[in-house]
Amino acid sequence: MTAASSSGWNSVVDHNAFVRFIDINLRGAGQVIFQNNPLTGLFFIAAIIWAAYAGNHISIAIGAVVALLIGTVTAMLLDVDEPSLRQGLFGFNAILVGAGVPTFLVDSPAMWFFLIVGAAVSTVVMLAVSNVMKTWGAPALTFPFVLTTWFLVLAAYAFGRLPIGEMGPPALPHAAPATDFITDMKIQWWPFLEAVLKGPPQVFFMNNWISGILVLIGLLVSSVWAAVFGFLGSLIAVVMSLALGASLADIEAGLFGFSPVLTAVALGCTFYQPSWRVALFALLGTVFTVIVQGAMDVALAPIGIPTFTAPFVFATWLFLLPKAKLQPHPHEPIKNGMFGQDR
Amino acid sequence: MTAASSSGWNSVVDHNAFVRFIDINLRGAGQVIFQNNPLTGLFFIAAIIWAAYAGNHISIAIGAVVALLIGTVTAMLLDVDEPSLRQGLFGFNAILVGAGVPTFLVDSPAMWFFLIVGAAVSTVVMLAVSNVMKTWGAPALTFPFVLTTWFLVLAAYAFGRLPIGEMGPPALPHAAPATDFITDMKIQWWPFLEAVLKGPPQVFFMNNWISGILVLIGLLVSSVWAAVFGFLGSLIAVVMSLALGASLADIEAGLFGFSPVLTAVALGCTFYQPSWRVALFALLGTVFTVIVQGAMDVALAPIGIPTFTAPFVFATWLFLLPKAKLQPHPHEPIKNGMFGQDR
Amino acid sequence: MTAASSSGWNSVVDHNAFVRFIDINLRGAGQVIFQNNPLTGLFFIAAIIWAAYAGNHISIAIGAVVALLIGTVTAMLLDVDEPSLRQGLFGFNAILVGAGVPTFLVDSPAMWFFLIVGAAVSTVVMLAVSNVMKTWGAPALTFPFVLTTWFLVLAAYAFGRLPIGEMGPPALPHAAPATDFITDMKIQWWPFLEAVLKGPPQVFFMNNWISGILVLIGLLVSSVWAAVFGFLGSLIAVVMSLALGASLADIEAGLFGFSPVLTAVALGCTFYQPSWRVALFALLGTVFTVIVQGAMDVALAPIGIPTFTAPFVFATWLFLLPKAKLQPHPHEPIKNGMFGQDR
Repeated sequence: MTAASSSGWNSVVDHNAFVRFIDINLRGAGQVIFQNNPLTGLFFIAAIIWAAYAGNHISIAIGAVVALLIGTVTAMLLDVDEPSLRQGLFGFNAILVGAGVPTFLVDSPAMWFFLIVGAAVSTVVMLAVSNVMKTWGAPALTFPFVLTTWFLVLAAYAFGRLPIGEMGPPALPHAAPATDFITDMKIQWWPFLEAVLKGPPQVFFMNNWISGILVLIGLLVSSVWAAVFGFLGSLIAVVMSLALGASLADIEAGLFGFSPVLTAVALGCTFYQPSWRVALFALLGTVFTVIVQGAMDVALAPIGIPTFTAPFVFATWLFLLPKAKLQPHPHEPIKNGMFGQDR
Repeated sequence: MTAASSSGWNSVVDHNAFVRFIDINLRGAGQVIFQNNPLTGLFFIAAIIWAAYAGNHISIAIGAVVALLIGTVTAMLLDVDEPSLRQGLFGFNAILVGAGVPTFLVDSPAMWFFLIVGAAVSTVVMLAVSNVMKTWGAPALTFPFVLTTWFLVLAAYAFGRLPIGEMGPPALPHAAPATDFITDMKIQWWPFLEAVLKGPPQVFFMNNWISGILVLIGLLVSSVWAAVFGFLGSLIAVVMSLALGASLADIEAGLFGFSPVLTAVALGCTFYQPSWRVALFALLGTVFTVIVQGAMDVALAPIGIPTFTAPFVFATWLFLLPKAKLQPHPHEPIKNGMFGQDR
Repeated sequence: MTAASSSGWNSVVDHNAFVRFIDINLRGAGQVIFQNNPLTGLFFIAAIIWAAYAGNHISIAIGAVVALLIGTVTAMLLDVDEPSLRQGLFGFNAILVGAGVPTFLVDSPAMWFFLIVGAAVSTVVMLAVSNVMKTWGAPALTFPFVLTTWFLVLAAYAFGRLPIGEMGPPALPHAAPATDFITDMKIQWWPFLEAVLKGPPQVFFMNNWISGILVLIGLLVSSVWAAVFGFLGSLIAVVMSLALGASLADIEAGLFGFSPVLTAVALGCTFYQPSWRVALFALLGTVFTVIVQGAMDVALAPIGIPTFTAPFVFATWLFLLPKAKLQPHPHEPIKNGMFGQDR
């Protein structure tokens, strides 16, 4: 937004409770990729609606919006910290729960019950994970979404009235077939670019390159750095997973890219400020996220559930938890242990 | 206990070391469902003995009592905090280890070795988990029992002299068959009530409705709220798992109810004080516990071990960790990070 | 080292940057078994080289040294705490990544890419885990190595250009066949001693008893207690896993011994000071580590990866986290909860 229009919007937000509620929810959508910006959220929701319409799976868009509203209302009922609420920090996990559940479970009354319970629970889990992680000055990231939705989709295997859609079946992993580097690299430019563009929208489970452009525009209106790091994160992921011989179908659907997109934006320009050293650190983190994505795809195969954004969460936490001048505990007697000197 | 008899007992406890030791162990049993009350513990132990006798599996009762004593003695040898010891906080995990091991492993010398080591270790793990969780003002719950016993029963698959009883075999999960709501709901009242009554004693691995009544009486003599929330927790679990089409055999054995019983008592009247807002929060937590129970049954299928009370532990932690006026870390640069402003 | 030679070496280290760098790396190797001593590190590296040469698998030794250097350089580039760097605290995880990756993945360009990325990441993860664990005054142990390398070897199943060597295949666990105590105990003395001697070098993935002697000498030059506890840890593990009927092939290769070796040295004389009470506590911890080893072998079977030193890490953390006079959170209302008295 321009400074003027942004200032006008903020003035309306301050004086009108309904507009404020809308603003909070739009910011909640924007915070999925770290942007405290209602216009960004609008673009992200547009990206979801477009892909849901194009893919003839409109319940994903309805689920996303319903869950976003429920997550925010739950936060209000729990009297959460007002400034955090206003930034949309209680919306970004809920909207992902709401997009994820209809993506993997078949439309049914029990599915909607799960979606509503999951959206409300995601706000509770956000508060829980935030309490734990702030011990080390770190954010909850999308772990509340990941944890809540893992429980929801796993439970679907146990309950007969929750038919499973595009998920599983559980299977033992097996080594990927050896591939030949040169052959795979004879990839054409359009499929390559399409794979890169599908990384950002796959954060929202969207397999659609036009939605990818909408997501990138959404980032651009809020932060040029975010758009740049987001695009580069997806690009690195596609190149690296191609070079390592990952499943071509997965690469083309953007499934190796969505977590690296988030890692790159998180490390490159959100939790650290852009610089050459930070860029190199973010590059290492992004490369590691691609490895973690492959690892978790394997680790979760026997229970037949997706990784969601867990590869981003785990890799980014590991790259945010180190502190300047931290002293690891040396290999010496510990203080106040069960058998200390003072006993 | 009445105030008078309770006062007389407490006086004897203060002056007689042997009676004090008995009191500590009885309270340890009572603390399994959060009651710092020796009479409650007596009822719980009676419930275990009755079900072990009725089920012709007396080693479960012997194991429970032996492990309870070992857990308490280990705590005394480790010079733990005296007031915590006196409340029975070092007994409730050990008694569960002692009931759990003979439930799943066949009677053998190696089984008793595992039971004894596990009971002693459960006290160490209680201290470890308590140290971690008190960082956020939260209790260890029964996680020390869950973690210790997971290691014990998993290891049984690796050691040829530890024959496995009622557990496993490891198998890949598959989606539950679709069920028809109306048909299943034609359940008769007695099996329904029996399933509800089996929730509370299944905390102690007891598939016996008379033991269920003993457990509920044990709660009642200590706290009316605890008995009410315990019963409601099991009722909600049975209704919800029936409605969602879970395995009828599991529901009838009380296997969907024991974790929700604990969640309901924990959230409804132990760690929060009863009120309408708390009751609604506890309801959400209890409903979520049923989902987590289904999820973990699926997640552990490939390694062939039971969930124990982990669904209660994880759901209740998530509902206890949120704090009033907590501020999540915003999506902004972190302080004292590897690449801070001051570097 | 004798006091005189040690003093001379330290003087050179202080004045010569190159020698200091060598010293840091040697200490890094020594810190794998908690010894802040360059001579110990030299013996450990000699043990690796000998076994790699004898086993005709020299890339393990090259990988170990390369990763050690990369881990240390990464720490320097990240401006870590100088005294911690000088003690070698940023080398012991990297060297294990470097020995582990070529042990389980086939020699290939992608394997070396993984090894280099993994070594650099292990330093970041060391900082992250140290930040978390120092909250409770506890060390990171080798968890940074375990976590990083789990991701690397799991990912190998997902990437076609990373052929898998001595690992997997993923399989559902099944109960070990019942064994007869007497028959197995008719073990001859040499295979028995060989199994004991292979415990310490298996910390470095080395299945070679001569390397075991080199590792024990390396401990001896730094600390007699460390050598004694290391040997006893392996002895207890072999006796116990034989008595429980574990896989003879695994026992003979030292695969039940390497984690107990580390637990025994950690608890017996590194983080607590040797005494009878500490020795009994360390004995319980070592026995529990053997159980955790069996348990984790089973738990990881479906995803086809090794436990690495995770059994040591988990058991030792549980035995280091308890503190003197710790008060567990009682089963009473929590302070500043979502629904506190003050609201």
